[in-house]
Amino acid sequence: MKHFRDEDALVKEIARQFLPSGGPGLRVGIGDDAALWNPKPGFASILTSDWFLEGSHFLREKHPPESVGWKCLARAASDIAAMGGTPRCFLLNLALPATASGKWLKGFLAGLRRAAKSLDCVLAGGDTTRSKRISISVTVIGEIREGQEVLRSSARPGDLLYVSGTLGEAEHGLRLLRKSRGKVNPQNPAMRKHLYPEPRVALGHWLAKARMASAMMDVSDGLSSDLPRLCAASGVGALVDPDKLPLPRGMDRESARQLALHGGDDYELLFAVSPSWVGLPDKFRTLRLTQIGEITKGHTVHIVGKDGRQQALRVAGWDPFRPRNK
Amino acid sequence: MKHFRDEDALVKEIARQFLPSGGPGLRVGIGDDAALWNPKPGFASILTSDWFLEGSHFLREKHPPESVGWKCLARAASDIAAMGGTPRCFLLNLALPATASGKWLKGFLAGLRRAAKSLDCVLAGGDTTRSKRISISVTVIGEIREGQEVLRSSARPGDLLYVSGTLGEAEHGLRLLRKSRGKVNPQNPAMRKHLYPEPRVALGHWLAKARMASAMMDVSDGLSSDLPRLCAASGVGALVDPDKLPLPRGMDRESARQLALHGGDDYELLFAVSPSWVGLPDKFRTLRLTQIGEITKGHTVHIVGKDGRQQALRVAGWDPFRPRNK
Repeated sequence: MKHFRDEDALVKEIARQFLPSGGPGLRVGIGDDAALWNPKPGFASILTSDWFLEGSHFLREKHPPESVGWKCLARAASDIAAMGGTPRCFLLNLALPATASGKWLKGFLAGLRRAAKSLDCVLAGGDTTRSKRISISVTVIGEIREGQEVLRSSARPGDLLYVSGTLGEAEHGLRLLRKSRGKVNPQNPAMRKHLYPEPRVALGHWLAKARMASAMMDVSDGLSSDLPRLCAASGVGALVDPDKLPLPRGMDRESARQLALHGGDDYELLFAVSPSWVGLPDKFRTLRLTQIGEITKGHTVHIVGKDGRQQALRVAGWDPFRPRNK
Repeated sequence: MKHFRDEDALVKEIARQFLPSGGPGLRVGIGDDAALWNPKPGFASILTSDWFLEGSHFLREKHPPESVGWKCLARAASDIAAMGGTPRCFLLNLALPATASGKWLKGFLAGLRRAAKSLDCVLAGGDTTRSKRISISVTVIGEIREGQEVLRSSARPGDLLYVSGTLGEAEHGLRLLRKSRGKVNPQNPAMRKHLYPEPRVALGHWLAKARMASAMMDVSDGLSSDLPRLCAASGVGALVDPDKLPLPRGMDRESARQLALHGGDDYELLFAVSPSWVGLPDKFRTLRLTQIGEITKGHTVHIVGKDGRQQALRVAGWDPFRPRNK
C-alpha cells in the first residue's frame, strides 16, 4: 500500500476498503461531516468507545497488524454484546506515524475489515491524524430492543454466576507471543484467542432476549478485576469456586488457575442467573457455559481457598493506571 | 485534584464531575459496559468522532487545559451542527501521562463540563488509559428529524455560497498564542475564538429545518481546504470573491485575506443556498451571514484575482498528513 500524501487520500483509501460504506440504518457513512444512524423504532442505540494504543494494548513488533485491526473492533463490540445488544456500525479514529502507513496499515485494515464482516458491523466514519505512536480509538454503536438490555447493576444475592468459554487462555496466548521469536502460530488456540478474540454477541443476545441473565458484563481485564465491578454496580458480593473455573490447557493446574483469575483479554461474558431459572444448558451452540460461583450478600468478592475457607479475592487484573507486574 | 491510583478511580471522578450522568434519551450513562441511547421515534442519531492530540491539535505549554476540554467537544459538536443536527451525548476517550492527571486534568474537565453544559450534550461514556502524551478522542452523537439532514453532496451550480461569522480569526488567535509569553488574555476576541470556539448549532438547525441550505459543512481546516471537499462531494466547482470574505480585525487587509482563506479552527458553517431563496438575512441572531461567492459548474474552486481574472484557489489549510508550514 502506498504512503498517503494527505488525510483525504487516507480516508478515501479506508472508505474504498470498506465498500459498500452504507448498510441498513446507516443513512450516511464515510465522506460527510458525520454519520447518520437511524435505528428502527422500538430499538435503542448502544454506544461504546475504546482505546487501543501501541505500547499499552499491543506491541508493534509482536502483534501482527491484522490482529490489531481485528481486536480493536472486537473488544469494543464485546461491550455491546455484554449488554445483550448487536453491534451495527463503528467509528474509527486512527493516529499513525509515517512508518505505519504502508504495510502495517494494509494489514491493519485487512484485519479490521475481517472483524467488521464477521460482526456485520459497518464503518460509519472517524478521524485520522499523524502521531509518533499508533493510537486507535474505536466507537461502536449497537442496537437492542427497548427494555431488553442487561446491565451490570441488577445481580441479586442467590443468583448463580456463570462465565462463557474459558478464562485465562488469552493471557496464556500473550505469554506465548512475548516469548516467541519471529513468526507466531495463529493456529495455537491460546494464541488465536489472544490475537483474534470473538465477542460473544450471539450468546449475549440470546441471554438478553430470553431474560435469562439478571446482570452481565464482559471479562476484559480479568475476572479478579471485573467481577468486583459487577458486584459494586449491583451492591452485592460473590463467592467464586476455583475448582469450577474453566481453565486454559497446556500448563499445571495452579498456573492455569492464576491465569483464569487474573488474566485479561478473554472477552468472555460473565453473567448472573436467578436460581429460579432451571435448565441453563452447559453449552450455547459450541460455547461452554460454566457456573463458577454465586452472588452473595455483602460487598466482597470471596474465593474458596485451598483449606476450604473463604478468603477475599485479590485483584490482579489489567489496569493501565496500575503498574503492570506480570 | 489528586492523582488517581487506578482507572476506576479516574472514571469515578469524571462521572462525579458530570453528575447527573443521565439525560433525556440517555437510558444508561457512565458506569456500565456501554451507554444506551434511545432517540425518539422520527429522530435519527448522528455520530462523529474526532482526535484532539497534544502536539498536533494543542500545545500543553500554550493552551490552557480549560480550552483543551472545551475545544475537544466543541469541534466534534461542530460536525453535528454542520449537518443541521443537535448534539445530544458524547463519549470521551482520554489517554493521559501521570504529569497531566492532577491540575491539568482538573482544568480540562472544567472546560469540558462547561462546553457540555453550553451545548446541552451529556457525557455517555468512554475509556481512559495511560500514555506518554495527552490523547483525546471524542465521539458525539446527535439527533435530527428524519430527512432534515443537510449533506455536503447536494450543492448545485448557481447556488449562492455563504459563511457564518468571520474566517481566519481563530488562526489569528493561534498566532497571538504562539507569540505570547506566560498568561494569555482570553478576552481578546481572536484568542477567545481560537481557545473557545462556539459550534453553530442553532444556525445549522435553523438552516436545516427551513430547508434553506442545499449543502453544508463546517470550516475546520480552512476555507481553501474545506470548500474543495464540499465541491468534490457535490460534483461542482465554486467561485470565491475575496472582497466579500468576512475578515478578522487587527491586521492589514492582505494578511487578513490570507488568514480567511487558509486559517483553520474557525468552526463556522459554510453553506450553499439556492438562488430561489430570497431574503436570507445578513444575520442569524447576532451572527453575521456573508455571501462569499457561488457554486459553479465544473470541478474547480476559483478565486477572483487582483487583476479581476479567475484563478484556481491554492489549498493551504491544515492537514495533519501534510507538513505544516505556517
